[in-house]
Amino acid sequence: MASATDFQAPKGTRDLYPLDAAKRRFIMEAWRHASVIHGFDEIDGPTFEHLDLYTVKSGEGIVSELFSFRREGGEKDYALRPEFTPTLARLYAARANALPKPTRWFMTGPFFRAEKPQRGRLREFLQWNVDLLGDPSPQADAEVIATCVSFLSSLGFTPKDLRIKVNHRKALTEWLVSRGLGEELHAALFKLLDSRGKIPAGDFSRQIGAFGFSVEQADVFAQGLIRVTIEEQPGLPGSHLIDLTYFAQAVTPLAAALTQAGVLDWIDFDLSIVRGLAYYTGMVFEVHEAGGGERAVAGGGRYDNLVELFGGPPTPAVGFGMGDVVLSLVMQDKGLMPDDAAMLEKAGLRPDVFVVSNGSPEADQLVRPVVATMRAAGLHARHTAKTTKNIGKLMQEAVSLRARFAVIVEGPQGGTVKDLTTNMQDASPMPIAGLAERIAQR
Amino acid sequence: MASATDFQAPKGTRDLYPLDAAKRRFIMEAWRHASVIHGFDEIDGPTFEHLDLYTVKSGEGIVSELFSFRREGGEKDYALRPEFTPTLARLYAARANALPKPTRWFMTGPFFRAEKPQRGRLREFLQWNVDLLGDPSPQADAEVIATCVSFLSSLGFTPKDLRIKVNHRKALTEWLVSRGLGEELHAALFKLLDSRGKIPAGDFSRQIGAFGFSVEQADVFAQGLIRVTIEEQPGLPGSHLIDLTYFAQAVTPLAAALTQAGVLDWIDFDLSIVRGLAYYTGMVFEVHEAGGGERAVAGGGRYDNLVELFGGPPTPAVGFGMGDVVLSLVMQDKGLMPDDAAMLEKAGLRPDVFVVSNGSPEADQLVRPVVATMRAAGLHARHTAKTTKNIGKLMQEAVSLRARFAVIVEGPQGGTVKDLTTNMQDASPMPIAGLAERIAQR
Repeated sequence: MASATDFQAPKGTRDLYPLDAAKRRFIMEAWRHASVIHGFDEIDGPTFEHLDLYTVKSGEGIVSELFSFRREGGEKDYALRPEFTPTLARLYAARANALPKPTRWFMTGPFFRAEKPQRGRLREFLQWNVDLLGDPSPQADAEVIATCVSFLSSLGFTPKDLRIKVNHRKALTEWLVSRGLGEELHAALFKLLDSRGKIPAGDFSRQIGAFGFSVEQADVFAQGLIRVTIEEQPGLPGSHLIDLTYFAQAVTPLAAALTQAGVLDWIDFDLSIVRGLAYYTGMVFEVHEAGGGERAVAGGGRYDNLVELFGGPPTPAVGFGMGDVVLSLVMQDKGLMPDDAAMLEKAGLRPDVFVVSNGSPEADQLVRPVVATMRAAGLHARHTAKTTKNIGKLMQEAVSLRARFAVIVEGPQGGTVKDLTTNMQDASPMPIAGLAERIAQR
Repeated sequence: MASATDFQAPKGTRDLYPLDAAKRRFIMEAWRHASVIHGFDEIDGPTFEHLDLYTVKSGEGIVSELFSFRREGGEKDYALRPEFTPTLARLYAARANALPKPTRWFMTGPFFRAEKPQRGRLREFLQWNVDLLGDPSPQADAEVIATCVSFLSSLGFTPKDLRIKVNHRKALTEWLVSRGLGEELHAALFKLLDSRGKIPAGDFSRQIGAFGFSVEQADVFAQGLIRVTIEEQPGLPGSHLIDLTYFAQAVTPLAAALTQAGVLDWIDFDLSIVRGLAYYTGMVFEVHEAGGGERAVAGGGRYDNLVELFGGPPTPAVGFGMGDVVLSLVMQDKGLMPDDAAMLEKAGLRPDVFVVSNGSPEADQLVRPVVATMRAAGLHARHTAKTTKNIGKLMQEAVSLRARFAVIVEGPQGGTVKDLTTNMQDASPMPIAGLAERIAQR
């Protein structure tokens, strides 16, 4: 016989008991709501894809971060999806001519990375993806950022809790080129900037010098020393170290669009955001705690070349992804995770009615049929699993389940309704056939 | 450059474009609603588990039906979940002492089988699982069946479309033992019955004879010749061939419970339902089209030994699973799949308001801020992506999106509301600050 400890969830995955599942639903419904009110349509793809789909975008190097596998007797390698963008590009490429311009898509679902689990990172996690394809304008950039802000606001976050840090690949590229640093060297530069702190200071200083920068200038990029807000542009800290002209040119139209979308107060223009620049082609952004504690809550940007890479027509596109793991940590930090009762209620788990017997044998026999009648009318109806006939105790159970109403079955003549919110009980029973309608009306 | 055809979804998996995703949501929400009103709490587990979890229940033979894999550098084998019951048993076993008695759980999510895809079978599919643990009574059996019926009714199915075929392992076992056929031979008998039609008739006749049965008696089991309804018990077709005493003893309390739950009119007691009897310990059932066309829509039963197998305490349990693939085929067959417009609306994809400009430059500039105001109030707001300023064409777009209201932005003085359901337009504009509240109220 096995013992309970022999069977555990795989490392980095989660078992969801009812409260955990209610939390998941709360987050996923909020993701969905923000998407829908911003005019995005839901889509999805398979949970696993052909492995090729991921190496095409990210190279063979990504394979070690994936859960990949082959069906017994099969010829093709598969991988559990580590991100949604390749699937999105595949879906768009397959129907590009028939899709509306622009196409506005979102999805929520599980994703998988074969990394070492740690704070803020699991091997299976949920992710929200929002993408707007076919519109190259800064207004499109602003729309996806506004969708992200709408979600964060709906949870109770304010611009004092979270900052949306925005950068622009074009600004960086043009400025670096203007300094004589060819585009072929940019990836190596950003890789070096990213390694800051992981290699000895002397090595970093020497290597950054080879790119024509001082360590102080590197700080501007690598540590986000410059946070530009539109109002503060004159006299930026660190602005004497770099030329902001290109940056201002790139972000001014975006800032105007973000103003129209009503979200500028969440934005910092921040040169330290250099995520995956080989992939992004324009605006890039990340959502961070104002205090800078956890990893990024979300990240995204413009990727105008990707649909083409997957065989579609050239298609401007912008989008972002947000996982549930860091988000949940930050919600906890900020005290924005609803308490257990609120969470269950938000997940729709509050009974409409709790049905009890008055204790007579004929009423006992009618409890289940009355419950069945309620449920047939679409009401969430429960009854006790206990053997007690003490009505006081049964009412306590109804209250602890947070039922809205109780029905005390008296016998074939019917049942008495008690409103558990007001604690008012009807003076006389009503026929069983009318009980469900009575409760549904209130 | 890749071409679009290089990238396709893996065989047996699905890409969900917006209408497909709306259909998925429609089915999953209906599953959820039926579960919740019957008092079941949502849970879930990882999408993949340790491979051991499946071989413990089903033996090594199941491995070829699974997508199994190992993390690079890892030591343990994993498998994409082919079913939920082992995860459910693991979750219950881990917290058995702290859980309510009975425990009522449901989940919906993706499952995976490495089988050859065919009509009604995919490699990735959705499944609804409903389980009631800790209650050995026929009332518990009836509750899970009633939850299944509640869902089917909510889609518009009636007992004329679908039948719930119920059998009882105890009845079969006791009857076979009474005929001198020891329990150790039962699995082989059912395997033989299951192979009927796949082996030559002469071989079948000879082999069934070895178990002490005639071919005619075999028909009673293997082809469901006996369909018992409570009213029809006397004079059953085929009843002269077998002794129904044991069957009647086992199903009489269940029939009483199904009557109390109000679902007896959906039930056929049917001796042909012998699914996985090594696993089930009592009542078993399958949902089939009345005409018998497709595979089973759902199946389940009582499995009182399984939690113990996973290291938990002895725990009576009953439950069922339903996939979305056969269900969808049967919904199509019966004309019960909502049309596209209804599906999108059920998925919540109908805009509350479509915002247009009156064509003046100052109004043009205000469309996006007005949309942002609406969304900040939680309304689903859209605007055109077209360049036309023709208000007639813009109103056509609003109508084709099935928007409830249009707002014509006149300028800083405000916007005019038009109710697209009644086609009534306000006589004069109202201030922008009041528009969202005006629309939210209606």
